[in-house]
Amino acid sequence: MSVLDAASSALPITIADVEAAAARLSGMAVRTPLLSTPALDARTGARVFVKAECLQRTGSFKFRGAYNRIAMIPEDVRARGVVACSSGNHAQGVAEAARLFAVPATIVMPNDAPAIKRARTERSGATVVPYDRVTEDRLAIATDIAERTGATFIHPYDDPGVMAGQGTIGLEIADDLARMGVIADRVIVPVSGGGLIAGVSIALSDRMPGIIAQPAEPEAFDDLTRSLQAGSRVANAQKSGSIADALLADMPGENTFLIHRQLLSPGYAVPDPALLRAMGFVMNEFKLVGEPGGVIGIAALLEGMLAAKGETVVVVLSGGNADPATIKAALDSAAPVA
Amino acid sequence: MSVLDAASSALPITIADVEAAAARLSGMAVRTPLLSTPALDARTGARVFVKAECLQRTGSFKFRGAYNRIAMIPEDVRARGVVACSSGNHAQGVAEAARLFAVPATIVMPNDAPAIKRARTERSGATVVPYDRVTEDRLAIATDIAERTGATFIHPYDDPGVMAGQGTIGLEIADDLARMGVIADRVIVPVSGGGLIAGVSIALSDRMPGIIAQPAEPEAFDDLTRSLQAGSRVANAQKSGSIADALLADMPGENTFLIHRQLLSPGYAVPDPALLRAMGFVMNEFKLVGEPGGVIGIAALLEGMLAAKGETVVVVLSGGNADPATIKAALDSAAPVA
Repeated sequence: MSVLDAASSALPITIADVEAAAARLSGMAVRTPLLSTPALDARTGARVFVKAECLQRTGSFKFRGAYNRIAMIPEDVRARGVVACSSGNHAQGVAEAARLFAVPATIVMPNDAPAIKRARTERSGATVVPYDRVTEDRLAIATDIAERTGATFIHPYDDPGVMAGQGTIGLEIADDLARMGVIADRVIVPVSGGGLIAGVSIALSDRMPGIIAQPAEPEAFDDLTRSLQAGSRVANAQKSGSIADALLADMPGENTFLIHRQLLSPGYAVPDPALLRAMGFVMNEFKLVGEPGGVIGIAALLEGMLAAKGETVVVVLSGGNADPATIKAALDSAAPVA
Repeated sequence: MSVLDAASSALPITIADVEAAAARLSGMAVRTPLLSTPALDARTGARVFVKAECLQRTGSFKFRGAYNRIAMIPEDVRARGVVACSSGNHAQGVAEAARLFAVPATIVMPNDAPAIKRARTERSGATVVPYDRVTEDRLAIATDIAERTGATFIHPYDDPGVMAGQGTIGLEIADDLARMGVIADRVIVPVSGGGLIAGVSIALSDRMPGIIAQPAEPEAFDDLTRSLQAGSRVANAQKSGSIADALLADMPGENTFLIHRQLLSPGYAVPDPALLRAMGFVMNEFKLVGEPGGVIGIAALLEGMLAAKGETVVVVLSGGNADPATIKAALDSAAPVA
């Protein structure tokens, strides 16, 4: 066994797990399109493809991981339901996936979460259990619910089934590029806990060996890039304060980082104003609503943070759950013609 | 030959023309996704599929017809270029299709067209020739250019090559539904001159015989529904005054109406405020930017204009070229959670 094989065998998921997830998600997840526009190519000097995962069920990629994970639970256990902690995209993904399996979902959500996020989770039939961010521990509450009810806890990123589900995005990207006869040099992925980039890099390193995979993170929340540079997981000093509300996990996951450290290169730390400009660009040029964290890879490109000239670059647009006020601010930030 | 066959043989295009257009557009046009959301199904009691043609190159379906028509011009003639009259989506579609064929495009555009529409047309390399709406005849100017330069005039809807290109949308809808094992009861299509609905109804009446095809038009601009009721083409009394700027043609085309009168049922006249609400809904639920005319079929559904309960309905979302002020108004019109 070579050194590489030995290292690979230690990873929490393999390409076979992602392929199995793709089979489970077939016909259930939206097969989102890979889009391009001459306006972005002209701005960057690169050939850029955008994976429009904001068009996924519930408006973000999170549905994939949640559905795959829930599908993997033995049927008798699954009937007892699922539980998750999230105020955002993971909550909606888990709630909707549970609805499709007709099993109960309980979402532990801070009591100061925006009403719209709670409403969107509840309309999928989930029960929301509010907690106090200051005085209560959400993980303890979720664990207690799981123990009392027999529900299965669905981690937002550090679970192999979740990672494999997100990895199906990488398989679709590879299939679409292969159909066009295109090989990508680089893929840029929004990162919080790192489940999405873990799955995508497993898929693309198999289908397009040699591709450079990099995280895009909010400025002051670039724990993954700094962890990659340090060789071990480091946390962010700052705990809040970016408009990219979906990308504020404290540090890479224990399991996800096993993949990150082997397959990723350091990436980009993008300031908030660039996220608004990118949202405006995405609305004007792609006719897509992206959320601040969702467009972060496109922002890195638009701001010239990488020398992509002459390259073929894939960017994952991971979600579109932006509120109206943020969308308006984005429209005011962007030039109407690129 | 039956009566139906005799009538069919008189139509300006057949399914074979649409299939030939699909072959020309393969790999050139975006194969746009057919999307759904439980929120729209719950609101309507129907199973609704939205063909997201705002994701097409240049932000509207117009690229398809323009590209197909230009592809049909003999190469030596095509080299002399193309000319079109439009200030909107057709202008951008023709300009971009001409750029891909590396032939010159001239667009005759009113001198009071918004600067952004002119800029978007010019960035595809087209020459914009401004004219005065009050004192000049745009068709005379375009004809003169065509005669002087040998350029081919590309009509926005009443040209068989253009209709066949738009019809490829119908083929894609039928393919996607067939893959899901779904048969649609009804398709609703935004209408101005009627090229899009002509092509789509030719395609779907072949692939899904018995489907009801209906136009959606702005209130006071429902010339097609009134023409269908009258049995011959009638014009709108009003010439301007709806926010659906892409849907204000005066009456159905001479050629398109040959198809309309055989394949369509009367449709829906939708007031402007409903268009804004639908744009907001589409942003919140589908994460798509639609323009007022683009979302008009979705507006008809959301406003309960048809008794769609229990049906499977396909709606074409034809374009997304809305300006920031209109997008903001739409966000203010829509409830954040459906």
